Amino acid sequence: MIVIMNPDATMRDKSAVIARAEDLGFKVHLSEGKERTIIGIIGNDRVINREQIERMTGVERVVPILKPFKLASREFKASDTTFPLGNHTIGGQEIVIMAGPCSVESRSQIIETAIACKEAGAHILRGGAFKPRTSPYAFQGLGEEGLKYLAEAREVTGMPIVTEVMEPALVPLVSEYADILQIGARNMQNYALLHAAGESQQPVLLKRGMSGLIEEWLMCAEYILSHGNTRVMLCERGIRTFETYTRNTFDINAIPVAKHLSHLPVVADPSHATGKWEYVAAAAKASVAAGADGVIIEVHPRPDEAMSDGAQSLKPEKFARLVVEMKAIAQAVGRDVRP
Amino acid sequence: MIVIMNPDATMRDKSAVIARAEDLGFKVHLSEGKERTIIGIIGNDRVINREQIERMTGVERVVPILKPFKLASREFKASDTTFPLGNHTIGGQEIVIMAGPCSVESRSQIIETAIACKEAGAHILRGGAFKPRTSPYAFQGLGEEGLKYLAEAREVTGMPIVTEVMEPALVPLVSEYADILQIGARNMQNYALLHAAGESQQPVLLKRGMSGLIEEWLMCAEYILSHGNTRVMLCERGIRTFETYTRNTFDINAIPVAKHLSHLPVVADPSHATGKWEYVAAAAKASVAAGADGVIIEVHPRPDEAMSDGAQSLKPEKFARLVVEMKAIAQAVGRDVRP
Amino acid sequence: MIVIMNPDATMRDKSAVIARAEDLGFKVHLSEGKERTIIGIIGNDRVINREQIERMTGVERVVPILKPFKLASREFKASDTTFPLGNHTIGGQEIVIMAGPCSVESRSQIIETAIACKEAGAHILRGGAFKPRTSPYAFQGLGEEGLKYLAEAREVTGMPIVTEVMEPALVPLVSEYADILQIGARNMQNYALLHAAGESQQPVLLKRGMSGLIEEWLMCAEYILSHGNTRVMLCERGIRTFETYTRNTFDINAIPVAKHLSHLPVVADPSHATGKWEYVAAAAKASVAAGADGVIIEVHPRPDEAMSDGAQSLKPEKFARLVVEMKAIAQAVGRDVRP
Amino acid sequence: MIVIMNPDATMRDKSAVIARAEDLGFKVHLSEGKERTIIGIIGNDRVINREQIERMTGVERVVPILKPFKLASREFKASDTTFPLGNHTIGGQEIVIMAGPCSVESRSQIIETAIACKEAGAHILRGGAFKPRTSPYAFQGLGEEGLKYLAEAREVTGMPIVTEVMEPALVPLVSEYADILQIGARNMQNYALLHAAGESQQPVLLKRGMSGLIEEWLMCAEYILSHGNTRVMLCERGIRTFETYTRNTFDINAIPVAKHLSHLPVVADPSHATGKWEYVAAAAKASVAAGADGVIIEVHPRPDEAMSDGAQSLKPEKFARLVVEMKAIAQAVGRDVRP
Repeated sequence: MIVIMNPDATMRDKSAVIARAEDLGFKVHLSEGKERTIIGIIGNDRVINREQIERMTGVERVVPILKPFKLASREFKASDTTFPLGNHTIGGQEIVIMAGPCSVESRSQIIETAIACKEAGAHILRGGAFKPRTSPYAFQGLGEEGLKYLAEAREVTGMPIVTEVMEPALVPLVSEYADILQIGARNMQNYALLHAAGESQQPVLLKRGMSGLIEEWLMCAEYILSHGNTRVMLCERGIRTFETYTRNTFDINAIPVAKHLSHLPVVADPSHATGKWEYVAAAAKASVAAGADGVIIEVHPRPDEAMSDGAQSLKPEKFARLVVEMKAIAQAVGRDVRP
Repeated sequence: MIVIMNPDATMRDKSAVIARAEDLGFKVHLSEGKERTIIGIIGNDRVINREQIERMTGVERVVPILKPFKLASREFKASDTTFPLGNHTIGGQEIVIMAGPCSVESRSQIIETAIACKEAGAHILRGGAFKPRTSPYAFQGLGEEGLKYLAEAREVTGMPIVTEVMEPALVPLVSEYADILQIGARNMQNYALLHAAGESQQPVLLKRGMSGLIEEWLMCAEYILSHGNTRVMLCERGIRTFETYTRNTFDINAIPVAKHLSHLPVVADPSHATGKWEYVAAAAKASVAAGADGVIIEVHPRPDEAMSDGAQSLKPEKFARLVVEMKAIAQAVGRDVRP
Repeated sequence: MIVIMNPDATMRDKSAVIARAEDLGFKVHLSEGKERTIIGIIGNDRVINREQIERMTGVERVVPILKPFKLASREFKASDTTFPLGNHTIGGQEIVIMAGPCSVESRSQIIETAIACKEAGAHILRGGAFKPRTSPYAFQGLGEEGLKYLAEAREVTGMPIVTEVMEPALVPLVSEYADILQIGARNMQNYALLHAAGESQQPVLLKRGMSGLIEEWLMCAEYILSHGNTRVMLCERGIRTFETYTRNTFDINAIPVAKHLSHLPVVADPSHATGKWEYVAAAAKASVAAGADGVIIEVHPRPDEAMSDGAQSLKPEKFARLVVEMKAIAQAVGRDVRP
Repeated sequence: MIVIMNPDATMRDKSAVIARAEDLGFKVHLSEGKERTIIGIIGNDRVINREQIERMTGVERVVPILKPFKLASREFKASDTTFPLGNHTIGGQEIVIMAGPCSVESRSQIIETAIACKEAGAHILRGGAFKPRTSPYAFQGLGEEGLKYLAEAREVTGMPIVTEVMEPALVPLVSEYADILQIGARNMQNYALLHAAGESQQPVLLKRGMSGLIEEWLMCAEYILSHGNTRVMLCERGIRTFETYTRNTFDINAIPVAKHLSHLPVVADPSHATGKWEYVAAAAKASVAAGADGVIIEVHPRPDEAMSDGAQSLKPEKFARLVVEMKAIAQAVGRDVRP
């Protein structure tokens, strides 16, 4: 940790900072420049409360040296995290494709969609049973009934299931049915939920919050990892910016950055990242080219009847064509989309 | 709802939209311009699924006419919502001042701070017992022990308590001790928590999320109001933007806008909105001038020992001076800060 | 144009809006719903001053129907704009690669870099002679001397030149040397410069401003097109958001959106869009997969000696490898990178 | 400057950084921690090219210690910059009020508005003769004719004039008429224009760009100051964020921050910062409470006929009432609005 003192900081101010650091057991190095004095605090600065130091008299600012996350970092684990799911491997050479409707709307709808997705080349089935909705008056999902229909669709198609869980108390119930727990963007920093998902030891798909810094996102993964649950996937789904033509701004940079900083697999969600079906294919192909380990795409047989997110859902035919295109790009970058 | 068709939409596309609206029981008006066809759907468009319509063939975009919130709106209730709390009235002519430390750290710390805040002119005591922290390794609050110390501080000073609740399961426990439940910025769209806070019938201080649109914030208030719990305060605490010199960007516009759109009281949080104690006073005074009904300010007797948010906490002397300045501004805008 | 009236607008307010529209020669349609009155103004609403209408008594908001740009739109010209440059075609089936150093630093540096870029597969040489710099104390470019060195590098390699022009008075001088005028992000809305670039009839590479909406960017292209200069390329180079790990956030969505709204070619600048060389290749490949018609990449033989933007410059070897990867992706999406 | 090395940087990498710094004449301090090596480069780091160092092998990141601006900083000049303008002093104890229409539309319009503003208490007249417009088809201002009308309005009312200049070539012409040159938000980083404004030795009102960091804004002031032109006012006019209910987000924090970092006067523009007349008064009052040295407000006698920015213009009566309110707040914070 580097402490930069104000130009008008007194010797007394500097001594106080040094004494504080030494009391905490750190070695200190003082460097007095012409315009600024710098105090270096040498050691594991994760354990020092940065804001306390910032609030000491004469301190201009504090620069932490170490990344705040540990278990999620490449320094802790250099090699990519991979794990099997169904007949596929997450985080490995193949690109994993998750697809399905935004919401489970009925037994027939989810089974019909699951079959269409499977035929088009999807590996994992997505579908929401508990839905976070901006309006309390909108469809909130079928709840446990929806989970049952998902399980039936899994039986029919053999595809594992990813579905969202929105509150800690429901983690056990959702874990009974789901193969992957999805933490939604609005809940990225719902710490009680992160703890519960960590404890569950289920694979987790952790969406980045609309205004979540990449480092904060990794800190949220750290919450889950700290329970010994290592099967965590990061999911970039677009961030909120001033541009409103698309629903979100797809932060494609986040894919290589997250893979550089962390060993965890990164999945892209081009449906939410664009919010309009016309742009989903371009964003999905870009994800694969940028190094994503998987994609999650909303597919609905009749998007103009979808109870949520119809505008960003692909019809099965378009999705099938997209799988072929993604496979070609995967091969162009030395990876593959397997059957 | 206004549906704008693509320039190349066919008669068949237009008829399909009209038929859909009529099937839903709406009256429709068709307006064919030279460059675009517009279909007006007349009536309460809150019940139509906008995304379904957007996904119909030939539709360019859909413009909703009505605001998505109802109970929170001025149209539903024209006059300001006011309610008593302790010896003061929230939402009325007086400006209510909430103050206290970020976290409850010990029995003595909270009682000492409460007495200092009370003497300086505060009306309500803030203090966190359950703390949302970016890092799983940081101090997470004292939990129920912290709530007990808060209750003791209330006994000593007579000030009502506002404290954060982070998960639905803890709403009953926190409600036993707190006079106001705080929903934090990270949990603005934690719908399970909003439902639980609504059901509790406790006064709620609802912080705006870091990337929450003003309309989304009001929709979150709607979740609480929909349970018949009308004692909801909106709290502007800064939004996340590209500017990083301050911790957040204080959206001062949100104060008059929220008061224009809604009848609910609006409280400003200049501590989080700036993140640096040097700027808290300027932001607090600006809030009062802009029409806020209250402020919530972090105060700590020894900020360089605070276990969280030390950098943005005022010492009691500075806070006391600020109360005097806010009172002068309150009077300049026809309001007051009462003892 | 749709005018939405306040719920409390009077008959007199509505009549005033209708009268105003009719005086301007428009047909009007009135639709009185239960909660809102809507006034439709039918015709080319680009000529009505929206803000005047918004300021009329009783008006809640105004929704324009037509896009504000015309010459830049697909409706004006449905087919892709293409034009030859050197031995290549911009906007056609092939992906055009522009490469070179941020700044021209010396005769030998630009010639050495040009040769390396050409050998690696670049088609067009980039290099700044006039440099916009955040600090008045930083290197501001070699000026006309730099242009002369660029022209020499063109002679040696046969590659056309793209270089930035920063003020209207310099457009004639820069046009003498350059094959493409670059308008930088900071100058996207420098209207005097846009007019001058339009008048020059030179090909223009128009970078998107750091906070430019896609529609505003197209309006800036419209300024150039309105002079009959049709050889305009749009260049997405990242936008400014809350995320600071990368220099900018690459708005990959902007590529398919700009191509959907406009017939103009779209070029991506992964160097500025990421700001760190480690992520340039991922972003460049994503651009090609998303449908960009070209890329512009900073290459420097010794980035740690570059006088500007060293951190985001690729060494020639890395660039050569990237060209091979981009070619593979281009082919995967039915396009090509030609020699 | 602090150089933080990668965990896997070699001795050779570290030596290269040290050698580079020593070659540039700096003293160096090496600190080897358990997880990271830190190299401190001691001295005036403004002259080192940060990006070159960042691009050296083994470097993780570089932290500059000194602020990039000098002449604009409080360290260079501790006391507030003040200067007389007409009968008033900018930057002193009084709050200066600038008012007038967005555009000069006609001789009678500007004279009528000037008289009304003067009567209401304004000190300086604003009005645009050259207008930056998003659309090339919108009214672009009356040009020199507008400047002449402004000069006439000055003669009638005695108020000095502030008006925008958009290109370097027009600085001499605009300077003939104007008392203050305004640099608009879109031109904050138009460096040729900043140089020309600096050379003119005229007072300058420098608006912050829509996505300009506070430090970048001060660097732009530095461009002007570097010509020995010390009469520079900073103008906060709102920044672009995800919130679209208001035209911009008024960054009220920027007022105390700019005054903390710099000795230059700070003016607020609540008209652009909100974009809707309903919220201008709240924002103007907040500006004064937050410490602004002046405000600039759009006033139009008939906003629904204004040729630009009608939606955010106040009528003279409302403006007159606002001046009274601002005076009360000015006095509450120990300042004043003088006649």
